[in-house]
Amino acid sequence: MLRKILIANRGEIAVRIIRACAEMGIRSVAIYSEADRFALHVKKADESYCIGSEPMSGYLNIYALVNLAAATGCDAIHPGYGFLSENALFAKACKERGLIFIGPDAEVIHRMGDKTEARKAMVAAGIPVTPGSSGNLESVEEALEMAESIGYPIMLKATSGGGGRGIRRCDNAEELQRNYSRVISEATKAFGSADVFLEKCIVNPKHIEVQVLADHHGNAIHLYERDCSIQRRNQKLIEIAPSPQLDEAQRQYIGGLAVIAAKSVGYTNAGTVEFLLDDNDRFYFMEMNTRVQVEHTITETVTGVDIVEEQIRIAAGLPLRFKQHEIVRRGYAIQFRVNAEDPKNSFLPSFGKITRYYAPGGPGVRTDTAIYTGYEIPPYYDSMVAKVIVNALTWEDAIQRGERALKDMGLFGIKTTIPYYLQILKHPEFRTACFNTGFVEQHGELVNYSNKPRPEVLASVIAAAMASHTGL
Amino acid sequence: MLRKILIANRGEIAVRIIRACAEMGIRSVAIYSEADRFALHVKKADESYCIGSEPMSGYLNIYALVNLAAATGCDAIHPGYGFLSENALFAKACKERGLIFIGPDAEVIHRMGDKTEARKAMVAAGIPVTPGSSGNLESVEEALEMAESIGYPIMLKATSGGGGRGIRRCDNAEELQRNYSRVISEATKAFGSADVFLEKCIVNPKHIEVQVLADHHGNAIHLYERDCSIQRRNQKLIEIAPSPQLDEAQRQYIGGLAVIAAKSVGYTNAGTVEFLLDDNDRFYFMEMNTRVQVEHTITETVTGVDIVEEQIRIAAGLPLRFKQHEIVRRGYAIQFRVNAEDPKNSFLPSFGKITRYYAPGGPGVRTDTAIYTGYEIPPYYDSMVAKVIVNALTWEDAIQRGERALKDMGLFGIKTTIPYYLQILKHPEFRTACFNTGFVEQHGELVNYSNKPRPEVLASVIAAAMASHTGL
Repeated sequence: MLRKILIANRGEIAVRIIRACAEMGIRSVAIYSEADRFALHVKKADESYCIGSEPMSGYLNIYALVNLAAATGCDAIHPGYGFLSENALFAKACKERGLIFIGPDAEVIHRMGDKTEARKAMVAAGIPVTPGSSGNLESVEEALEMAESIGYPIMLKATSGGGGRGIRRCDNAEELQRNYSRVISEATKAFGSADVFLEKCIVNPKHIEVQVLADHHGNAIHLYERDCSIQRRNQKLIEIAPSPQLDEAQRQYIGGLAVIAAKSVGYTNAGTVEFLLDDNDRFYFMEMNTRVQVEHTITETVTGVDIVEEQIRIAAGLPLRFKQHEIVRRGYAIQFRVNAEDPKNSFLPSFGKITRYYAPGGPGVRTDTAIYTGYEIPPYYDSMVAKVIVNALTWEDAIQRGERALKDMGLFGIKTTIPYYLQILKHPEFRTACFNTGFVEQHGELVNYSNKPRPEVLASVIAAAMASHTGL
Repeated sequence: MLRKILIANRGEIAVRIIRACAEMGIRSVAIYSEADRFALHVKKADESYCIGSEPMSGYLNIYALVNLAAATGCDAIHPGYGFLSENALFAKACKERGLIFIGPDAEVIHRMGDKTEARKAMVAAGIPVTPGSSGNLESVEEALEMAESIGYPIMLKATSGGGGRGIRRCDNAEELQRNYSRVISEATKAFGSADVFLEKCIVNPKHIEVQVLADHHGNAIHLYERDCSIQRRNQKLIEIAPSPQLDEAQRQYIGGLAVIAAKSVGYTNAGTVEFLLDDNDRFYFMEMNTRVQVEHTITETVTGVDIVEEQIRIAAGLPLRFKQHEIVRRGYAIQFRVNAEDPKNSFLPSFGKITRYYAPGGPGVRTDTAIYTGYEIPPYYDSMVAKVIVNALTWEDAIQRGERALKDMGLFGIKTTIPYYLQILKHPEFRTACFNTGFVEQHGELVNYSNKPRPEVLASVIAAAMASHTGL
């Protein structure tokens, strides 16, 4: 088993990994920029090291991190999500330094990160992909010709893109012509590669993704699927496991398909195979994320499997602890990404000091966060400040619990997406499990909630104020 | 379905019930003494009413509470645990006022509350009971004679006793003679009844209890068992579901036995059948608790069933939502009762102001509490300030998670049982699931932990202090 892990990340996912280390008896090493010196992951780790005064560069400096891990006696690095988590060079640098990278092999990261390569691999493995180019496009003429044969709308995508960037929808030849050079220029700037390709645009699909685990002994299983259709501009907001929009046959099919996909590329460690589901109930491979996802929590909740612990065990060379039939799924879990944003103001970031924070509690509620009362959210990073995960045996009960938990949470000093999520939870399309990736855009009216504090919040604030004034 | 419920309780269980109401769309009415005016249940309920300046009497005033419920338009009362929860007169008074008492019928409460009556009912139903008197004792002579025939040690018990009070162990005739009048006098003072009986003393048994649910349509199921053997002076400290000390056959047997016991007395709503398990693997009925238990949480965690919600549904006349075979148990859950006590000082209460409180979080952790930063724990009530519940797929992982969660929790300003529990978690007998109700007494050395703050706590305190001084 590993003895000491450097966590090349920050915030809630760093705290999540530190917790897994603590439970496994593994020492944890945190890193932090100067802006993060009061961050919770710094407090919770066994050791913490400052990696620079600049907010971002330290978290992205491959060689500095590999050197630090080696110097502090770590035997492995966990990259979390974002930052260097899908950087094949980082995985390679770890290996060259004799460190275990907790994730798949560098070659697999590279291959799945190149979207045309990934498409080719999936086609070879018999996985359905959306109609589109078999490789990178050579010219705008080739693009126009292919789009004509597939039929508009099409999506023009940067081959190295990800996270919803480097993607443009084109509804006709004119738009394709206009966007072609734009996406190339964006891709060059953002990802350092001018390669682009195109795919048929599945209009308002459902986003269904499958969690897989694969070890170094040829074993691979899935932990069922997640429905991440509630997105805004390709950013997931609310995730659900399992999808309340699939029947059991679809669930078995897509789970099995994901395992075949993972095995076909020699995948190891935890990964996610993302699919689109169209109106005709057809699934299409979208991409594979070669890291732990923000929403791994809901899969943990419905299956009981600790995915981060399994990542570490797999990386240490241990075989999977579970066979497919031993994965017992129960009920539904919903994750709300509590973002420091103002939904009423175009979801503008709302960074600042958290004047008071109370975690929600009681049955079926999990909170993953790195905030605390008095914490000032630095403006340099992701706006997600907490993940609230609820679960219950039925979809209806999970919704009710979600509403209760979000109201239970006390988070003062910044604006958050909580009141917006309360609106979504009330919407009949959400409640009856009938939504797709167009939901947020189609229901712009959901930001029209009252900003008046709820009575219980008011009572809580007043009582807290009274308590602090009276010395109680 | 019910529309509005008065919660005749306080603290964490009141918050627990308010949460269930919120999830079911039922309005909640809280009550509070003046000492409790800053309590969390007061803030969380839809309505709150002061029930007097005296700390205890308002929570125990049957007619005042029934009147308040009627006056505020409630259709039901939830008694929680403790206070009036097992008071048959309260259940009767509710019924007479046209209010639903969320619990079994008054007659069943009365019958199971009278320990000799309960014993008789169980014997009639074929449930094994410890050898002992078939009714109340008439005289010390009868007691001595019976003790001689059963064999010492014996337990002398108040018929109306409970919660570990009104019980004395007698190892020989001399002790029985001495304790006889003492227990009668204690029982008269504490329970208003001089009735006593005796039973064979099962030395250091395991405490195994089964959660049952029974509706008004003749359906009864169990939700498996809990192991509450980690007790100090008959007060439970750590509870586990399911018992890691039972095999699957024992589990099925005791579950079925509990359902037979419940059905035999016409039981309805949630209840707990408590058994002792001796060294020869024999189970004996101990008592039935006719209310929700403090430790219902761990059963909720391993089965996914919301017991408080089921209580409310049953009280509303709805049939059980689950058949026995639909109860899917998964993994292990452990509850730690975090008490405001100083284990190093004979577990003396340590009331006072909570200067800082951080809830533990992450995977497999649930917290039920009514405390918050700045809350002053009143000295009039129970010393339990929080329940930390952890779960994992295996016993070993649950232990590791328990240790992590207890360290994760930040609770400053008072002394608690947390460091003591960390010692128990390290003990080989606990880790190998080999313990009985004698564990705490046999391992008095476990209070000899260092009071030096753990490094992570120190870091947290320093950072918090820095943050508040620098305005960060």
